[in-house]
Amino acid sequence: MSRSDLPTLAVVGATGAVGTVMLDILSTRENVWGEIRLVASPRSAGKRLTVRGEEVEVQALAPEVFDGVDVAMFDVPDDVSKVWAPIAAERGAVAVDNSGAFRMDPDVPLVVPEVNAAETANRPRGIISNPNCTTLSMIVAMGALHRAYGLTDLVVSSYQAASGAGQEGIDTLHDQVEKVATDRTLGSRAGDVRAAVGELGPFPAPLAMNVVPWAGSLKDDGYSSEELKVRNESRKILGLPGLRVSATCVRVPVVTTHALAVHATFDTEVDADAARTLLASAPGVVVLDDPGAGEFPTPADVVGTDPTWVGRIRRSIDDQKSLDLFLCGDNLRKGAALNTAQIAEVVAQEFTGA
Amino acid sequence: MSRSDLPTLAVVGATGAVGTVMLDILSTRENVWGEIRLVASPRSAGKRLTVRGEEVEVQALAPEVFDGVDVAMFDVPDDVSKVWAPIAAERGAVAVDNSGAFRMDPDVPLVVPEVNAAETANRPRGIISNPNCTTLSMIVAMGALHRAYGLTDLVVSSYQAASGAGQEGIDTLHDQVEKVATDRTLGSRAGDVRAAVGELGPFPAPLAMNVVPWAGSLKDDGYSSEELKVRNESRKILGLPGLRVSATCVRVPVVTTHALAVHATFDTEVDADAARTLLASAPGVVVLDDPGAGEFPTPADVVGTDPTWVGRIRRSIDDQKSLDLFLCGDNLRKGAALNTAQIAEVVAQEFTGA
Repeated sequence: MSRSDLPTLAVVGATGAVGTVMLDILSTRENVWGEIRLVASPRSAGKRLTVRGEEVEVQALAPEVFDGVDVAMFDVPDDVSKVWAPIAAERGAVAVDNSGAFRMDPDVPLVVPEVNAAETANRPRGIISNPNCTTLSMIVAMGALHRAYGLTDLVVSSYQAASGAGQEGIDTLHDQVEKVATDRTLGSRAGDVRAAVGELGPFPAPLAMNVVPWAGSLKDDGYSSEELKVRNESRKILGLPGLRVSATCVRVPVVTTHALAVHATFDTEVDADAARTLLASAPGVVVLDDPGAGEFPTPADVVGTDPTWVGRIRRSIDDQKSLDLFLCGDNLRKGAALNTAQIAEVVAQEFTGA
Repeated sequence: MSRSDLPTLAVVGATGAVGTVMLDILSTRENVWGEIRLVASPRSAGKRLTVRGEEVEVQALAPEVFDGVDVAMFDVPDDVSKVWAPIAAERGAVAVDNSGAFRMDPDVPLVVPEVNAAETANRPRGIISNPNCTTLSMIVAMGALHRAYGLTDLVVSSYQAASGAGQEGIDTLHDQVEKVATDRTLGSRAGDVRAAVGELGPFPAPLAMNVVPWAGSLKDDGYSSEELKVRNESRKILGLPGLRVSATCVRVPVVTTHALAVHATFDTEVDADAARTLLASAPGVVVLDDPGAGEFPTPADVVGTDPTWVGRIRRSIDDQKSLDLFLCGDNLRKGAALNTAQIAEVVAQEFTGA
């Protein structure tokens, strides 16, 4: 098939943290796209970026950039998506949106291809949403376990990377680590790290040599927006409106890759060995679970890779229906750009009849 | 009362990471001790350390150093305690041991004074154990909630500091942070942090710019010793042999102060405001819980202090009998030296009739 027979893709937000990873992903995955248009804010227009080995000039976001576009990916803030995804849809593109603007809209499917790919077809608004990065760090594995055992409860504690707060988060962490690196007295007296790190950037407390039990904005009853996303998005993706979910979201001084400790309870008894075998054969999941040999996933060891990594798989000692696991997923790849690309590829099949 | 009327204390392991904090604690708390003997391995004997503003010469560990001692604290490895705590007890001292050697011995009480101070009297072997630092980071708060609501289940995810692995842990973290501090490309490609950090020290994976889901040694069914301690010690301290506990222990790049995300389920319905009020009045607990004002405990902000800090108190949205909380406790103080000192002070009252 020549490129002219393939669907046209627009990448909106091509110059951002997720957009940059997206261009890398589009350059390395099997190509299903004809023209790829790169779109960003007017101040980035005219920049030349490389995708699929070719230089492409960035266009300023405007209604007419969507003319002739089949699929438009949005890696932009909520308020930009809110305005522009419907405009893209009006112009005939299927919008695949990585913001939080439409995720809980009942007329917008929330899709993880390994879990609910068929939902991409149910898109009355012409928009498909990509889940939050924290939910995405576990949901492929949870979907596989749910199909086998019937999930009833999730207790989730996150170890979230700085890049979840964008390039500013990454820069802030590097700045702070540099400032605390040479004073070996730091970390033993209350506030000495706070005095040393300088600017807090997008975080409400120092992140270097610290952990911060907060991500997102304040919602009802003391919950953070991030914690509610984990609950509400897990329910929607798994099609389990009654799933009981408790999440505590905590930022840790890691550049990229979210980790989660998950306590999952099922309808039926579970077995750690069987769960390990099941997860090892699940698409998009890699099991790394031999602590005696020092094998378990850590963010630094799996960052930059595509799968959801699972280790520390144990049946709860006091509850034969529960598993405890530790999961890692690159929040910029599967947690954002990769899943968006996968959704777009599912939609692309409609145009090519593949 | 003059010093000669007060009980004699021996501090075994006075030169270690916990021992150093112990001397600070003994120097700042209200004094209940007459003579304080400092004891360490032969290679530290002859050193002069300051306690209560006075220089004291360190004595080599030998049976006769316990002659005339009323209370002997042990801040030493398990194998040293195993041999020497019984020798101290034979010589007439009450041994208060901070190692893991005796914690689950049915003839040794495991004591947290705010929770079960009376247990100090039930010591047929003349030994009292101090709990593991991770258990201690939550148990004072859990004890207060249990008394009000009746605890049935705990799901615990830890964010454990490097100093839980002793001075070698602290030094390794500082070494690694220094090595990753200046290269701003690190943390985006699998293994680049591992290549940069140098020696792993006591940790099974890089700790700088990473989190490591492992602490302790491998036990049955994939559990770490640390995870089993959280379960078994919580049951013993709270006097709840049927308590269901699931723990996942994770090391984070923080120098000192363990943090825990806890999902606690009770016999009765709970209310976040009532729990907040109850915890705020519990001895040894401070509530810091106003996320709208950026208030929640973080390790860097509370390290070096005595209380258990509690924030992010929420009732689970899907279970009116469960609370989610985030707790911080200095693992060298309340998690080790302080609780040992508090136990010793309870015992000291037997000698002074206070």
